[in-house]
Amino acid sequence: MTKRPLTSRRFVKPSYNFLIEKKRDGGEFTQDEIRFIIDSTLDGEMPQYQCAALMMAIYFQSMSAQETAILTEEMMLSGEVIDLSHIAKPKIDKYSSGGVGDKTSLVLLPLAVASGIVVPMMCGEDQEFEISTLDKLAAIPGFRGNLSIREFVHQLERVHGAFVRQVPELAPADAKLFDLRRNTGTIPSLPLITGSVLSKKLAEGAEGLVIDVKWGNGCFIKDLEQAKQLARSMTRVGRSMKRRCVALVTDMNQPLGDSVGTSLELKEAIELLKGNGPEDMKELVLKLGMEIVRLAGVAGSTLSAKQTVQRHLEDGTALAKLKEIVKAQGGDTSFIDDPSKFPQAKHIRKLPAPKRGYVHTINAAMIARGVHLLGAGVENPEDKPDFSVGVSEIKKVGTQVKQGEPLMMIHYNDEAKLETALEYFKNAYRLAPKRPVPPPLVVERVA
Amino acid sequence: MTKRPLTSRRFVKPSYNFLIEKKRDGGEFTQDEIRFIIDSTLDGEMPQYQCAALMMAIYFQSMSAQETAILTEEMMLSGEVIDLSHIAKPKIDKYSSGGVGDKTSLVLLPLAVASGIVVPMMCGEDQEFEISTLDKLAAIPGFRGNLSIREFVHQLERVHGAFVRQVPELAPADAKLFDLRRNTGTIPSLPLITGSVLSKKLAEGAEGLVIDVKWGNGCFIKDLEQAKQLARSMTRVGRSMKRRCVALVTDMNQPLGDSVGTSLELKEAIELLKGNGPEDMKELVLKLGMEIVRLAGVAGSTLSAKQTVQRHLEDGTALAKLKEIVKAQGGDTSFIDDPSKFPQAKHIRKLPAPKRGYVHTINAAMIARGVHLLGAGVENPEDKPDFSVGVSEIKKVGTQVKQGEPLMMIHYNDEAKLETALEYFKNAYRLAPKRPVPPPLVVERVA
Repeated sequence: MTKRPLTSRRFVKPSYNFLIEKKRDGGEFTQDEIRFIIDSTLDGEMPQYQCAALMMAIYFQSMSAQETAILTEEMMLSGEVIDLSHIAKPKIDKYSSGGVGDKTSLVLLPLAVASGIVVPMMCGEDQEFEISTLDKLAAIPGFRGNLSIREFVHQLERVHGAFVRQVPELAPADAKLFDLRRNTGTIPSLPLITGSVLSKKLAEGAEGLVIDVKWGNGCFIKDLEQAKQLARSMTRVGRSMKRRCVALVTDMNQPLGDSVGTSLELKEAIELLKGNGPEDMKELVLKLGMEIVRLAGVAGSTLSAKQTVQRHLEDGTALAKLKEIVKAQGGDTSFIDDPSKFPQAKHIRKLPAPKRGYVHTINAAMIARGVHLLGAGVENPEDKPDFSVGVSEIKKVGTQVKQGEPLMMIHYNDEAKLETALEYFKNAYRLAPKRPVPPPLVVERVA
Repeated sequence: MTKRPLTSRRFVKPSYNFLIEKKRDGGEFTQDEIRFIIDSTLDGEMPQYQCAALMMAIYFQSMSAQETAILTEEMMLSGEVIDLSHIAKPKIDKYSSGGVGDKTSLVLLPLAVASGIVVPMMCGEDQEFEISTLDKLAAIPGFRGNLSIREFVHQLERVHGAFVRQVPELAPADAKLFDLRRNTGTIPSLPLITGSVLSKKLAEGAEGLVIDVKWGNGCFIKDLEQAKQLARSMTRVGRSMKRRCVALVTDMNQPLGDSVGTSLELKEAIELLKGNGPEDMKELVLKLGMEIVRLAGVAGSTLSAKQTVQRHLEDGTALAKLKEIVKAQGGDTSFIDDPSKFPQAKHIRKLPAPKRGYVHTINAAMIARGVHLLGAGVENPEDKPDFSVGVSEIKKVGTQVKQGEPLMMIHYNDEAKLETALEYFKNAYRLAPKRPVPPPLVVERVA
């Protein structure tokens, strides 16, 4: 367990109001002050209304790199920090800020493990724009994502990777702050996002972290400059906490891959693990995979990193690893051998192009919303999501289509739900007479 | 009772988070939204943490003139609005943002009443920098400041003026918001200050309001530009609510008048009501008094306004009015006839000038703090403040002094308290070899 540095002996607890006013006026918190804020949040000593005002002041005045690093460390140390030093292999984790159609983790985790790396990944909650990795894996009968820390570590020792739900013992101060931020308009603050993500990630025991920060209409960061700033903020804090860190800023202005929906995305992930699959996903898996193996020291040069990653995709070892991990967590691996066993929708119909032209833009958030409305998402947590619905064969930005040609295929079970979802799908597409220049998939590498 | 405008029929209640984010991103609230916020604050529906985040967002993004006017009106309409239309005389109120040594209300109120004006003034709470009007009047045996609305109106009908504590029935939404703002660093927001002050003031039944916004080291607005903005914000809102409004921006970079302390300030106020007293207080009373009589329509021209005010000071009618009002509220008027009856301190000593020179600056807040420490202020609300202590014969900015000459006289009862207070008094004064140019008392008139 990481040792917590001592609070200065001379530190006199300030009033919460003093701290709020200090940040409101653009001041920089000391380590003792940040620790006091985190301690007071954790034990509920600081009234929520004062904490909310403080979060909003941080939203407007931001935090310095040093403050952000201290915040992250203090939040991490508010709970358990997993020690994996007894596992001899390199331990690298991956974080993605998430987006529509993002099934990267399903591919990258077994790929990294196959490359000789331990990946202690805990998966986040469902987000507005994506079906979380664990919610996708829930389509595999028997699969269990709720492991205890003990079970998690045990699985890492045996199979070197796990798809596990975030455990409440890690960074509990973050959980409390996040609940408050969600209801007070203070989610989109770069230092607070950095602290929230990294306090949990760095408690999972990895020595290094590869970060995928997405920007665009299909994720929560709409602005490229903000995504770059977040990437820089995260790598800086990671390094200051003695972790190797690399971030890629990647495009999320159209769905990732060809499909959105649980069964459809699982199938696509399995194809990717066989070395097939859509180009953009292949590129993203390759680029992120290369970063992971280089950070782990498994491959020295760019070329050897690329070869390592491609080999494990092509020779089937990555796919075998996925099966091994799923099996260790109780899942029925026959579904991976035969993806046609995943629930299939009763009906498939095309979304016809209203005119000829090039796909100019796709509003990925609308695609996500439509898939949600088809039944992939549920309003009531007791309801079961429909794994079978979704969209496939998505025509990506820059593709030329004739009038009436399918822009994508819609998998649905319920005509009424299709009706509402269709509006979103139709409005998601903009066609234009000229071929657009699609934005690059990887915009920037921050190391 | 003022009628509350109807909420639009089409208004769909938004989530509190939506409102927070709207203001966070610089949006402008509609009337329905502001009403919803005030209603939700009043009935406790909006969680305090969301209200706190909203207040901080308003602190940073401010409010438009229209939003501020709506906020003020909605807060006013959250409680009772006193109707004085059955009293035929003009009804003018006065508000001061307060400062060290400010005893203006004690003089202005009877002066305005003597001039034929009804002054429905409720007095605010004690502030950091001043002994409130009601706390000063508490030195008069028998005086009762806690009147009900009914008693308040009755007294206005009979004697046309009253010194009354703010009643809880007026603008209860403001009381709730103010409690929250006090603990969340959101006091110094111009639209929120405007709403807080005017929602109460305009509920007191006056047709016009004269506002004294102070700026300087002896009050809560340290910045002249901010004071000017507040003056403009208040007069604009007042006018939009169909009240005649004038504001003076005045200097508070040294104590007002010659004395600070309950007995000493009462004595000074009584001297002023006799047409005597220190020059700066005389000027301020005259200027504010002229604004009141002009706003009331009692005097048409500047000259006749000046003559009206001066006559009532010189012929004793203003002083007689003070006695009438104090008597109506149960106070022993023999103290006004013979101010030597007010509690006197056991000891008086001078604060000697450490060198020769001109008084260059006086930190009024330090003077206030010193007087507080002498016993004028109490930490525990059950303790009784010491009316007798304070400072008098204050040498003002620009005065030439020889070494050892008194900068002021200190009235004290307790050597130990004197010891701590002395540090503040000493540090409050800066002497310089050259005569400084004192700032003008009235900086700007906003009408």
